Amino acid sequence: MTQAIFLIRSMDRKGLLSGISTYFYNKNFNILLCQQYTDDRENLYFMRVCVDISDMKMTRKEFSASFAEFARTLSLEYSLNFTDTPQRVAILVSKTSHCLYDLLAHAQDERDLKCEIPLIISNHPDLENIADKFRIPYFCFPVEKGGELEQEKLILEQLDKHHIDLVVLARYMRILSKDFIDRYAGRIINIHHAFLPAFQGGDPYRRAWERGVKMIGATAHYATVDLDEGPIIEQDVERITHEDGPNDLKRMGKDIERRVLTRAVRAHLQHRIITSGRRTIVFSR
Amino acid sequence: MTQAIFLIRSMDRKGLLSGISTYFYNKNFNILLCQQYTDDRENLYFMRVCVDISDMKMTRKEFSASFAEFARTLSLEYSLNFTDTPQRVAILVSKTSHCLYDLLAHAQDERDLKCEIPLIISNHPDLENIADKFRIPYFCFPVEKGGELEQEKLILEQLDKHHIDLVVLARYMRILSKDFIDRYAGRIINIHHAFLPAFQGGDPYRRAWERGVKMIGATAHYATVDLDEGPIIEQDVERITHEDGPNDLKRMGKDIERRVLTRAVRAHLQHRIITSGRRTIVFSR
Amino acid sequence: MTQAIFLIRSMDRKGLLSGISTYFYNKNFNILLCQQYTDDRENLYFMRVCVDISDMKMTRKEFSASFAEFARTLSLEYSLNFTDTPQRVAILVSKTSHCLYDLLAHAQDERDLKCEIPLIISNHPDLENIADKFRIPYFCFPVEKGGELEQEKLILEQLDKHHIDLVVLARYMRILSKDFIDRYAGRIINIHHAFLPAFQGGDPYRRAWERGVKMIGATAHYATVDLDEGPIIEQDVERITHEDGPNDLKRMGKDIERRVLTRAVRAHLQHRIITSGRRTIVFSR
Amino acid sequence: MTQAIFLIRSMDRKGLLSGISTYFYNKNFNILLCQQYTDDRENLYFMRVCVDISDMKMTRKEFSASFAEFARTLSLEYSLNFTDTPQRVAILVSKTSHCLYDLLAHAQDERDLKCEIPLIISNHPDLENIADKFRIPYFCFPVEKGGELEQEKLILEQLDKHHIDLVVLARYMRILSKDFIDRYAGRIINIHHAFLPAFQGGDPYRRAWERGVKMIGATAHYATVDLDEGPIIEQDVERITHEDGPNDLKRMGKDIERRVLTRAVRAHLQHRIITSGRRTIVFSR
Repeated sequence: MTQAIFLIRSMDRKGLLSGISTYFYNKNFNILLCQQYTDDRENLYFMRVCVDISDMKMTRKEFSASFAEFARTLSLEYSLNFTDTPQRVAILVSKTSHCLYDLLAHAQDERDLKCEIPLIISNHPDLENIADKFRIPYFCFPVEKGGELEQEKLILEQLDKHHIDLVVLARYMRILSKDFIDRYAGRIINIHHAFLPAFQGGDPYRRAWERGVKMIGATAHYATVDLDEGPIIEQDVERITHEDGPNDLKRMGKDIERRVLTRAVRAHLQHRIITSGRRTIVFSR
Repeated sequence: MTQAIFLIRSMDRKGLLSGISTYFYNKNFNILLCQQYTDDRENLYFMRVCVDISDMKMTRKEFSASFAEFARTLSLEYSLNFTDTPQRVAILVSKTSHCLYDLLAHAQDERDLKCEIPLIISNHPDLENIADKFRIPYFCFPVEKGGELEQEKLILEQLDKHHIDLVVLARYMRILSKDFIDRYAGRIINIHHAFLPAFQGGDPYRRAWERGVKMIGATAHYATVDLDEGPIIEQDVERITHEDGPNDLKRMGKDIERRVLTRAVRAHLQHRIITSGRRTIVFSR
Repeated sequence: MTQAIFLIRSMDRKGLLSGISTYFYNKNFNILLCQQYTDDRENLYFMRVCVDISDMKMTRKEFSASFAEFARTLSLEYSLNFTDTPQRVAILVSKTSHCLYDLLAHAQDERDLKCEIPLIISNHPDLENIADKFRIPYFCFPVEKGGELEQEKLILEQLDKHHIDLVVLARYMRILSKDFIDRYAGRIINIHHAFLPAFQGGDPYRRAWERGVKMIGATAHYATVDLDEGPIIEQDVERITHEDGPNDLKRMGKDIERRVLTRAVRAHLQHRIITSGRRTIVFSR
Repeated sequence: MTQAIFLIRSMDRKGLLSGISTYFYNKNFNILLCQQYTDDRENLYFMRVCVDISDMKMTRKEFSASFAEFARTLSLEYSLNFTDTPQRVAILVSKTSHCLYDLLAHAQDERDLKCEIPLIISNHPDLENIADKFRIPYFCFPVEKGGELEQEKLILEQLDKHHIDLVVLARYMRILSKDFIDRYAGRIINIHHAFLPAFQGGDPYRRAWERGVKMIGATAHYATVDLDEGPIIEQDVERITHEDGPNDLKRMGKDIERRVLTRAVRAHLQHRIITSGRRTIVFSR
């Protein structure tokens, strides 16, 4: 069943639910799912609506134009996506493979991560063999000292050329420039190997061990120019004991990182996330 | 802010959301929250709507009559509750105090469990001192052999007399008769000290230990005539190891039981639960 | 069964386990439990030994002297505790009751927290009624501006007078002086209402909400002069969603705080914790 | 550093720890780790000892003979393993790939599962491409009606020929004969896609959904002739809601299954498990 998914944001006021649901009813659409969230502090209203468009009589352009007209009357901000349009995802990696594996296995074998992955980009050659396993082109753009922007340019060219919708930093150990992030604002997901805001920055497992924490975690978030400060999408943790040394933490952390990252990417691909300032609204379905 | 909370069930069909939300909009109510769930397999539609009635111009009887009329036209089943009407809860216990404590502390001291607890009933005298601590009348109705129904009658009399809305079996170690359960159908919450459907019946911690499970749990559910078979409201678990003996499991289990029971009671008191066959829809707010 | 529990620390070297276990064997003691941990980075060896002293023929003083002599030959640091000597715990509180309740219920009613609680001390009068419920003397020492040290002196007098072994800060919202902390070094347990090292300092739930984290937590640690920097004993977390506002976080956090604090206090009372720098070794039994 | 790992079982009595640790001390071995567990109910004593044999002056045969002699005097049952002897693992699969992937990725790419995987066996051809990705021979032995034992014979031949130490049933959907299980007793690990003992047998996710549980889980256990009744090694769960349908449970369950299975296999490969009746002792390191 093909669906149209609307992510809507508006100032909160009476009648929004009635107005929007009646719009779809009058057009003879079946609303499959309608979720809302009101942020009382900011007086903001968020909504996710999924409607069945299997039997739609209009073209998609007509449909889009019609809703755009309607949205204007209510001053709604929104995005509209169709579930039969596959999103195109680029994965950026450095040397560690666990997150990459998980994304590829879910996308290609489990088929429960619906997207196309036309390319993998790295600043190191190490993971080419994994790309080969999954028959995906692997671009290795090493970073030369002083050549950071040049390297980014090479990446951006490939992203543009391949019509990439979402960039996933699957343990890509480089900081992206403001320019890069602006071009893909809200479309870059990073995994940080700590329970943010604890242990921002480098070498978090060693620091977690030294601090003697009793749980470790991982955090998937949208990348922003302030490193590790972007809106959090998903987090998870696991219990550790004094017996676990820094290397154990690293190993255990990998399992957390990859499931957190895969969940976050799935939520994004399913159009379940609306960002509001530093916070994300992640609808459950 | 006083709210009216509607729990609605209906056959699924187009236009329900539009119809119901527009009803409230036309009556000039602000919808604070509207949650839905569609059971595709059964073609059932469930909805929870909270509306602000602080400035309502009608009487509550007029409001109820108006919605009843509207619901008839759409063939909606529903219940209507007002948040300023405190619910009256009876707690039934036997000899163990941990669940009782937790409920009383949340109701009286934390004040995050909104209800009145006019009485505690037990088949044993052991927990009278706890009732005294919280200044709640304690009724001890011991069970004589062959006098089970007689004892239940005494309990039912007190429940009726005190206008009880919800009966919480906080480790009450007696099986209730069909008659009792029918009279309070959907209004009796029991805590079972195992992760149902594992270890139904007696002595679950010992059996869990003997089976060598690596996690133990607890389950809060509505009581039905089939013991431990009622619709599950909430569950939780904790990890154990081979070092934990049956008594450790018991002790650790208490912490799980009481938080599971308190969460389930809170969900019921907040009118967040709709039962559908053996399953519960528990809305998140 | 009465046990002697040894917590031992030493430089790591060959023969420690053989030497110590043979000491007890030669004295005809049954070793009930022997746990070890080696910190390879610091070359430190930690051990917890529980021996059955039910049938001991020596006096405890003779036993202590004998082990002291033995420990000197191996350069062991250690502490020796007997399980039939109840520890005396003072609970310090301010205005919130949930942690206090949990400790009292476990100590008095569940009887799975073995200790005496001869007094509760607060800087506010609010929780006197809870102390009354459990029939424990309640001392209210309000803090006057500039009178902080004077107030601490009153507390310390009561701690000394009541032979207090362990001070539990059950949401006591005052910072203790270096002098106070030094006098009870390693014997003050604090609960911080966040997943340290995230959200050190004040108002962590609000800050957690603003940062948009997807899990909240609590941390029990030994108090040191650097606020929220002491060795962590226990942590736990729970998942939240965008729907949970600051007040929800507060309410959910209470449940985490109290179970984390009670677990930490239990571990301390059972002589299961050895501190090593900023880290704790918490043996599982 | 090469280690010898002893897993020891004995009747409990005084002096075991002293005797065993002194044996190693006298032979000039450094004990790296020594963990014990006493089952008071059965009066059984379990021990895991890791000793450093990097500088051993004896041959391994001499060492083994020496300990065997010593063990006889104390009536110890034991197994002895050397960490530089890689174990050889056969993975049996049917049609689903998620557990297979995880094992292969950890063994070949993450290198945190130390073993050799010389072959993958299936009753279906579906997963050959994954075996190819990892360059591991794939044997497809379909089951013909009435040919079950014949098919098992083919499997057993391959297991024997490849000197297999451990058989992992990574969602292998066939029941093994008593003969098969006896030949690899204690060396077959199965993953069941439910939180045993709940939902034994087929189609557990559907049954979990119908029962309306609020958490789902997975269980790794040693295979025994009684299906799903073998000693449990590891379990884990995740929270679900009414919104999750049977297919969601299946998808979410996959993540639980694979991490539970991989953890169980790791514990076995690290010689951390001793089985005692229906229970397992799983040492933490």
